[in-house]
Amino acid sequence: MQFVLTKEFIQELREAVQKQDELKVVELTHELHPADLAEIIEELDPAELSQFFQYLDSEKAADSLMELEDEVREKFLSTLTSEEIAKYFIDNLDSDDAADVISELPEGVKDEVISQLEDVEQASDIVDLLGYAEDTAGGLMAKEMIRVNENWTLTKCVREMRKQAENIENIYTIYVVDDDNKLRGTLSLKKLLFAPPRSKISSLYQKEVIFVKASASSEDVATIMDKYDLVVLPVLDELNRLIGRITIDDVVDVMREEAEKDYQLASGISKPIDFSDRMALLTRARLPWLLIGLVGGILGARVIEMHEGTLQINPEMAFFIPLIAAMGGNVGVQSSAIIVQSIANSSLRLDTVAGRLGKELLGSILNGLVCSMLILGYNLLFSDSLILSFTVAIALLSVIVVSAMLGTAVPLILNRYKIDPALATGPFITTMNDIFGLFIYFGIGRLIHMMF
Amino acid sequence: MQFVLTKEFIQELREAVQKQDELKVVELTHELHPADLAEIIEELDPAELSQFFQYLDSEKAADSLMELEDEVREKFLSTLTSEEIAKYFIDNLDSDDAADVISELPEGVKDEVISQLEDVEQASDIVDLLGYAEDTAGGLMAKEMIRVNENWTLTKCVREMRKQAENIENIYTIYVVDDDNKLRGTLSLKKLLFAPPRSKISSLYQKEVIFVKASASSEDVATIMDKYDLVVLPVLDELNRLIGRITIDDVVDVMREEAEKDYQLASGISKPIDFSDRMALLTRARLPWLLIGLVGGILGARVIEMHEGTLQINPEMAFFIPLIAAMGGNVGVQSSAIIVQSIANSSLRLDTVAGRLGKELLGSILNGLVCSMLILGYNLLFSDSLILSFTVAIALLSVIVVSAMLGTAVPLILNRYKIDPALATGPFITTMNDIFGLFIYFGIGRLIHMMF
Repeated sequence: MQFVLTKEFIQELREAVQKQDELKVVELTHELHPADLAEIIEELDPAELSQFFQYLDSEKAADSLMELEDEVREKFLSTLTSEEIAKYFIDNLDSDDAADVISELPEGVKDEVISQLEDVEQASDIVDLLGYAEDTAGGLMAKEMIRVNENWTLTKCVREMRKQAENIENIYTIYVVDDDNKLRGTLSLKKLLFAPPRSKISSLYQKEVIFVKASASSEDVATIMDKYDLVVLPVLDELNRLIGRITIDDVVDVMREEAEKDYQLASGISKPIDFSDRMALLTRARLPWLLIGLVGGILGARVIEMHEGTLQINPEMAFFIPLIAAMGGNVGVQSSAIIVQSIANSSLRLDTVAGRLGKELLGSILNGLVCSMLILGYNLLFSDSLILSFTVAIALLSVIVVSAMLGTAVPLILNRYKIDPALATGPFITTMNDIFGLFIYFGIGRLIHMMF
Repeated sequence: MQFVLTKEFIQELREAVQKQDELKVVELTHELHPADLAEIIEELDPAELSQFFQYLDSEKAADSLMELEDEVREKFLSTLTSEEIAKYFIDNLDSDDAADVISELPEGVKDEVISQLEDVEQASDIVDLLGYAEDTAGGLMAKEMIRVNENWTLTKCVREMRKQAENIENIYTIYVVDDDNKLRGTLSLKKLLFAPPRSKISSLYQKEVIFVKASASSEDVATIMDKYDLVVLPVLDELNRLIGRITIDDVVDVMREEAEKDYQLASGISKPIDFSDRMALLTRARLPWLLIGLVGGILGARVIEMHEGTLQINPEMAFFIPLIAAMGGNVGVQSSAIIVQSIANSSLRLDTVAGRLGKELLGSILNGLVCSMLILGYNLLFSDSLILSFTVAIALLSVIVVSAMLGTAVPLILNRYKIDPALATGPFITTMNDIFGLFIYFGIGRLIHMMF
């Protein structure tokens, strides 16, 4: 039952679309899930696309629109009139998806599309949702949900639910509210199905319910749903009135984007990209970090130039420049990555800054000693210069310890000032530690030379 | 309603536990979610812990056990007898969680615990589940679910569901099977609630249903649930019989672990760790990559040593060693990270290897030209040596292009041979590119020197 997109399939479909063979197109696609349709759509040309959409069931067409990459969707929608967008797509979407699509439209088109909507309730829901910032609970929530009053009987409850359920695909949770629409709790389906029909909701519902305020950040929403293993989370306004619900699938997207962003920052890519993106975008996203590396390299060159004297006395010191720079970079990236992940998992709560730095200090001395003993052994065996051997070993230990301290402190400091600590991972910390490493290396080299 | 753990709270609770003040402990904790309890438990000593667990409601105690870090849970369970583990915990857990806990127990204890279980069905479910590898759909699934026969009427269906629902907390989906227990489809709650009671299930259920085989990998499960926005996914055996279901919360954990693993590999950490882990673990997880860096640094030293002649003629070349090494490393990490993410998102499906390399080649030439023009400009302004200026610029361009090619090719090759491509990111590619970069730099230096 899982669909796998092949070149042959695309070819066959494309021919059917071009021949306007509706029967064939429907035969090929009627069993497919919107997510599969989206994969197909991304392979089609704009002309084929508008033809193809005419053959799709309108609910499915609307849902597959939501599965498209933003860029593809925007391009496609720009070929349609406001009326078409409203009738074929927005009217068939859940309020949260509808609001997302509309928020991506050009300013002028937005109002036109909303005014064309046939479903007045949908239109008012969308206008409501557009008022929330994209990265808040309000921006993630949908308005569709099942809501019952605590004073109803089960019989009345089922009757009212039938009305509400018309527009709702899946019933995840039944929310219980009071006369002021304030959230009181949830009613389990088990109770709904199996309790005596005359019982009052107020005697059946479960009072403990986890919720968020509409102004909560999307990261907070993700943390809460993950921590409490929730499939759906109710959203309240400032007066604790129930105004929407967030489902886990939308939050999974938030979580994935967060993780990808951290990963990309650690890898020196400045914005979310994918190999399938356009060349210009791919190149531009990488250049900023390369330029930071370039500036770092130039500064490194200046540091070595400053110590040209030391280098002339002991030219073999040049051999170990890459080692010192690389180890400083590696340790720094490790330290910052551990801190960034611990901040993301909020597993640092009860630790103090001093405690963290102390732990890192001890660990880096341990690892530093192992590495510097190894390099000392190697140099004592293979190098003629005792001074060089000790310089490299002592510098390596110092560089590892300093890099670990910087790698730990910088993300903590950024986090304290509400800057994304992930910025401190990757090329930034590597570059910084390269320069510090060279300073330490040549500083120790000069010192040891002066001593002997 | 969200609980925030404070030092004061822990202090108060700890005192109540030590004084064996059950009333106070219950007052402090009875409204808390198992996930909150787990946070508290991780702060308590073993002695306090066993005291604390006696005051908890047994369902909640069992659930909070599942929210603990593996290490904490193992340590706590090792203080209990098999009978206690069976009675207080395993009997109160869902089958998937129960199997997870038992699989972590020492070999001898496993059978003892299973033989102590009061619920025979639970015991047989657990033995079944223990047969599946941890990282497969079978290892993720639970046995508890609502299953109805296509030949039943709605009335019979509700009656049977009442029996089945006893052991089930949330009803996500009602699965429809035939007489051989083969999955036929799903019955929506809307149909169940609102269709005439005499209708046959066979006329109501939805046939299109996405499922996995028990042998599918957990990554495949995550991909499918993410792609199709599923909250729950049925699991079939080789004969298409329905044997379990996987819920999204377990898969979110898989996805997070995947993302963290990739992130940690890119940052040079060899196994999943967290800042709160023990020192020894923290240190050990980092040492392997540092040793790789060390070996790389030694090889780098050998490369420079081989070119000592070039360096003596043109000692200023030493200044730009860190620049060349760093840029090679940065570009390699970027390229490999983009490929690793594209593989993870399976967005490379219809691209060919040649196509990917070609795209990367073009992009890297572009970025390489920008960087090498800038460094040429800098050196022409600030350095007296024309030869050095051109050597650095040409070497930088070459290093960027070669590093991009290696960074793209290595993960693709690893992936082809079913090795985790994320291994190629981070310190591995950085170290490799450091060495290649030095070869290129000194090779070009010698060449240019010979020419002029």
